[in-house]
Amino acid sequence: MTEHAANLDIHGATTSDTQERIMLAHGGGGELTDRLIQQHFVTALGNDTLNALGDGALLGRRSGTLVMTTDSFVVQPLEFPGGDIGRLAVCGTVNDLAMMGAQPIGLSLGMIIQEGLPLALLDRVVASIAATAKEAGTCIVTGDTKVIERRGDGEELLINTAGIGEQADGIRLDVKRIEPGDVILINGPIAEHGLAILSKREGLQFASALVSDVAPLNGLTAALLASGADIKFLRDPTRGGVAGVLADISRDAGVSVEIDEAAIPLSRTARHAAEMLGLDPLTIANEGKIVAVVRGADAETVLNACRNHPLGTAAAIVGRVTDAQPPLVELLTTAGGRRVVQKPYGEELPRIC
Amino acid sequence: MTEHAANLDIHGATTSDTQERIMLAHGGGGELTDRLIQQHFVTALGNDTLNALGDGALLGRRSGTLVMTTDSFVVQPLEFPGGDIGRLAVCGTVNDLAMMGAQPIGLSLGMIIQEGLPLALLDRVVASIAATAKEAGTCIVTGDTKVIERRGDGEELLINTAGIGEQADGIRLDVKRIEPGDVILINGPIAEHGLAILSKREGLQFASALVSDVAPLNGLTAALLASGADIKFLRDPTRGGVAGVLADISRDAGVSVEIDEAAIPLSRTARHAAEMLGLDPLTIANEGKIVAVVRGADAETVLNACRNHPLGTAAAIVGRVTDAQPPLVELLTTAGGRRVVQKPYGEELPRIC
Repeated sequence: MTEHAANLDIHGATTSDTQERIMLAHGGGGELTDRLIQQHFVTALGNDTLNALGDGALLGRRSGTLVMTTDSFVVQPLEFPGGDIGRLAVCGTVNDLAMMGAQPIGLSLGMIIQEGLPLALLDRVVASIAATAKEAGTCIVTGDTKVIERRGDGEELLINTAGIGEQADGIRLDVKRIEPGDVILINGPIAEHGLAILSKREGLQFASALVSDVAPLNGLTAALLASGADIKFLRDPTRGGVAGVLADISRDAGVSVEIDEAAIPLSRTARHAAEMLGLDPLTIANEGKIVAVVRGADAETVLNACRNHPLGTAAAIVGRVTDAQPPLVELLTTAGGRRVVQKPYGEELPRIC
Repeated sequence: MTEHAANLDIHGATTSDTQERIMLAHGGGGELTDRLIQQHFVTALGNDTLNALGDGALLGRRSGTLVMTTDSFVVQPLEFPGGDIGRLAVCGTVNDLAMMGAQPIGLSLGMIIQEGLPLALLDRVVASIAATAKEAGTCIVTGDTKVIERRGDGEELLINTAGIGEQADGIRLDVKRIEPGDVILINGPIAEHGLAILSKREGLQFASALVSDVAPLNGLTAALLASGADIKFLRDPTRGGVAGVLADISRDAGVSVEIDEAAIPLSRTARHAAEMLGLDPLTIANEGKIVAVVRGADAETVLNACRNHPLGTAAAIVGRVTDAQPPLVELLTTAGGRRVVQKPYGEELPRIC
């Protein structure tokens, strides 16, 4: 064992470039795995629960209703304008909990690393995970690391996060409560995450930078739920975009939804980029947006609460629920026309999150 | 959208072999993703919590101490003698909870599928997940599916499971409670998971079949903890094997451990296979084994409790904790010698779990 180990160390130090890289042996569950975890994960992510490094994390007793969620992240490139796969992995899971009206108790972190990944890149991603978890008021409580063999070029890192959260009392989020007269709120400009990834991947340049909106939304949802408005449904429009969420609402609640193109927050740059790429902004992924369905009479209340939060300053009421039959989502275009908004079928954009 | 969709369908149906396969578009978050989830996941895994298909699972209120754990699975081949990646993914996470003295409340399932994976293979894995979860008395409560592009040959499926569990009251598992005089119990023959995978991968044949021991251990741990024996520590010897667990115990408790080679359960076939492959059975991964550290006076009690359980019929006391300094793990060999047992450094066997 010792001889073999020495060989691995030498190999690690003499690759033609001088960067330290992940080796298959880092995933073997031996001393080298321990060292990776201690030096590259625990140092950055450490907290009392994680530091115990048992088979799992002890989270104590909780009085509230528990919520569990999971998400895997396969985005390419691993670092992009406005974020990286680590920030995305924390936000994706925190936001799923937030959409259930829950605050995170803790997150798990499953890393699948392709051999050859530079340790410096891994360190940046882990630092981003730590910072984003802190921003969301939570932490990584347990983790697992595997290494897979190199195939093809490029840097490959796949991350799963699962989250356990606790729902505030009195939460009444239920798609079945949606009814005609309710309004649709979005907390800011759409399509920026997907467009930022795609522009980076395709090497496109625009007058203004396209930056991912990736952010933890649990502070904003807490503010909305505390506003007194009757909030019936919250969903983050990630893969499938706003179009996908509205189509699901229409199908699951059996109602129609009418949205005003002119009211939908969309930056000039994003509009331009989507046109160039031949994409509908409504179908493009967001990672820091909420679609909220709220009782019509509470529209002003919820809009003010949203605009008072840093992640909701550009919020807008973008549409309303109607009783038109059959249930459909329709866009009232700026040109004065109407078109049906459908859930995307597949997607033109693989590995966007 | 509709035209694009039709193209995808035709493409799916006209590949040169007649097997239906996963396409990148299955991961897009659109209609095709919905269909995959409904027809291939919900059908097999369905339960009231999962069927709600919200952003997360509502798990209700729990009075006990919560435990959370996660594991990713990258085993190749995906199906092997005695199990498959699905059974492994459920057992790995259930067993981590079990080693904390906890019973599972629910599991999350994160699937990363490489395009081209035959849907029939995916269905077999999902059916295995459902059956194994049922065997462990739990279920999949929430999930996520991503698709990555094809690279290289072979069928690629990566699975993450996270688990949330509830610890029984009065659990006093703590490596720091281990002291000289305690005994080490193993519930049956070791090294079978790693050897089964490796033999399948290398096309090796033996007189008797090598079959993975992968099994959910939460029933057995519950029986041990209910036996009245003072159980101080439980750990499943997966990657790094029994050697890795004993080395961790020695380091973390600051004690020495002495094990008797003649007492360690090991089948003739496994011994033969390990010799042929030049591997030490103590360092080979298990997926249905427990290393338990128990107060010496309770050795008979815990051994009887173990042997009365179907997964512990071949249990044995294999060693003892001593106060020898410095803290070391030593093997008393069948030839009457002694050798130091070390934690493996890397591992010769990538993608074993």
